[in-house]
Amino acid sequence: MSVMQSGAVPLESYKDMIDGEIERLVLERLSSPRDQPAMGLAREVLLAGGKRYRPMLGLIAYEAAGGEDVGNVMDFALSAELIHTATLVHDDVYDRSKMRRGKPTIHASHGIPHAIIAGDYLFALGFELGARHEPRIIDLVSASCARVASGEILQLEHIRDLSTQPENYYEIIDGKTAGPFATACSCAAIVADHEEFVEPMWNYGMEMGRAFQLVDDLLDLIGDESTGKPRGTDVLEGKMTLPIIHALTVTHGADRDQLADVLTNYNDSRLRELTDLLERAGSFDYSQLLISNHIERALESLSSLPDSGAKGLLIDFAEMSRSRTN
Amino acid sequence: MSVMQSGAVPLESYKDMIDGEIERLVLERLSSPRDQPAMGLAREVLLAGGKRYRPMLGLIAYEAAGGEDVGNVMDFALSAELIHTATLVHDDVYDRSKMRRGKPTIHASHGIPHAIIAGDYLFALGFELGARHEPRIIDLVSASCARVASGEILQLEHIRDLSTQPENYYEIIDGKTAGPFATACSCAAIVADHEEFVEPMWNYGMEMGRAFQLVDDLLDLIGDESTGKPRGTDVLEGKMTLPIIHALTVTHGADRDQLADVLTNYNDSRLRELTDLLERAGSFDYSQLLISNHIERALESLSSLPDSGAKGLLIDFAEMSRSRTN
Repeated sequence: MSVMQSGAVPLESYKDMIDGEIERLVLERLSSPRDQPAMGLAREVLLAGGKRYRPMLGLIAYEAAGGEDVGNVMDFALSAELIHTATLVHDDVYDRSKMRRGKPTIHASHGIPHAIIAGDYLFALGFELGARHEPRIIDLVSASCARVASGEILQLEHIRDLSTQPENYYEIIDGKTAGPFATACSCAAIVADHEEFVEPMWNYGMEMGRAFQLVDDLLDLIGDESTGKPRGTDVLEGKMTLPIIHALTVTHGADRDQLADVLTNYNDSRLRELTDLLERAGSFDYSQLLISNHIERALESLSSLPDSGAKGLLIDFAEMSRSRTN
Repeated sequence: MSVMQSGAVPLESYKDMIDGEIERLVLERLSSPRDQPAMGLAREVLLAGGKRYRPMLGLIAYEAAGGEDVGNVMDFALSAELIHTATLVHDDVYDRSKMRRGKPTIHASHGIPHAIIAGDYLFALGFELGARHEPRIIDLVSASCARVASGEILQLEHIRDLSTQPENYYEIIDGKTAGPFATACSCAAIVADHEEFVEPMWNYGMEMGRAFQLVDDLLDLIGDESTGKPRGTDVLEGKMTLPIIHALTVTHGADRDQLADVLTNYNDSRLRELTDLLERAGSFDYSQLLISNHIERALESLSSLPDSGAKGLLIDFAEMSRSRTN
């Protein structure tokens, strides 16, 4: 069950708010001759949907941390989504991905130069909106971007590296996914002007981001293609995800040789062979256990927050992320 | 004669100041585990030299506008150089350039993913430093980036478009080059807290940026390869520069057919054939005249500024840009 299909009207209404604000921003910039050529390209990916998890977490964390007017944190929330989208557009260029959010990627439809430029434009716009808050926010946003860049570089260094360790994996996902989630939640507490909740919110976001990435990596192997993305994409790209790292560590003998061969000479027809090996190694159970641990820790980090509807949504968000299918 | 070889010690000392600050920033970020992987890549292009025109103009314009402690504008000046370098790294990816600032480009030595990520990191760092100033500065920096993106997209749309008009050319160079020069100079006046010089500085930067790009485009055709870049690169990439646009407009008959053929089927051996056609059409003289006009207008825009050493340097800078060779 996806967060978006949960029937939880309040969560859906935060997403609607974000979608509406993004639409307003796109229209505003399209009407400026200065932005029109760049936004004309970027609008497609901005309006193609997307889960909007980062900005939603920003809005909800703001309220859970005692913020009273969600409009005060909106620029930051949009900034998080714009910068996230910028990295997706650029990732898709070098991953050569053909589709994103159900539409052709910018580089697939317009070429690599256009995609690189559109991503750069989205970065600039994201930083412009983030800088409308106090200076500390943009420092944290920039630090988050530095961590994303470093995480992505580490990930490239470990492509098809069968000796990758779990600590390498965590270094990568903490940089590219958990850091932005933690930044979204903790900056929201700063904007809410409740310093005492900045660290708990950072921890909640960090643990949620880890759980999110671990679920994403599991879905690449055993997800339902009818509701999500095509499977095996990460394997094809040589990305070392945790189930694979686990299996390489615990498997020996003929299974280990077969596993190394599947990973080194992977093609779509070998997905079942790979998942059978991972199943036998207990790697899916291991990943599920870690996901549960991260979600438990995310929930624990909320303990110091006063009870509120928004805190309830953060709890729901954590519980549901366990079982999302796309 | 290049600005850097002019023997003008004061100008050189501003460049040294920028170089020193960039080196300090690189070392600082290399010592942080968060930035190390990304800065490890970006350091090469940051420390490989470069003219540093944008940050130098920022420092000198700040003093010419009455600013007293150049340290107050340094973050902005570095921001201008970091964002400029980010766009160079990304341009080199899609222009497939092998060399930049005398060294292999990041994508040539490390691959396209690394170059895209390093550029993104430089953007984030540039915005972080720019946001240390008052909020108005980052709005202007972001607006400048939007104009750069839009200018680059327009440039792509006019690749090998023989019907490109001078106004298309100006729309492109105002976005990608003159805008950042104007932003550097006008933001410096804002940081100096002299509102009355913001517009004159904007105009000076705009005219200087136009002159700079027109000289750059001339050097691609008739520069001295021993002191500058290889010639004909823009022609090979199909970029429509002003001498070419001019020649296409004024040439008729057999010369026009030959010109269209050279441009459409260009290779390195046809450079002389092209420059002979441009010479006959008076296109180099036309470009030189426009360069002189832009420099005159840049100088005129300084008239409201009080006399000072820094104002003298802005005048020198304008005079020397007329005759630079690289």
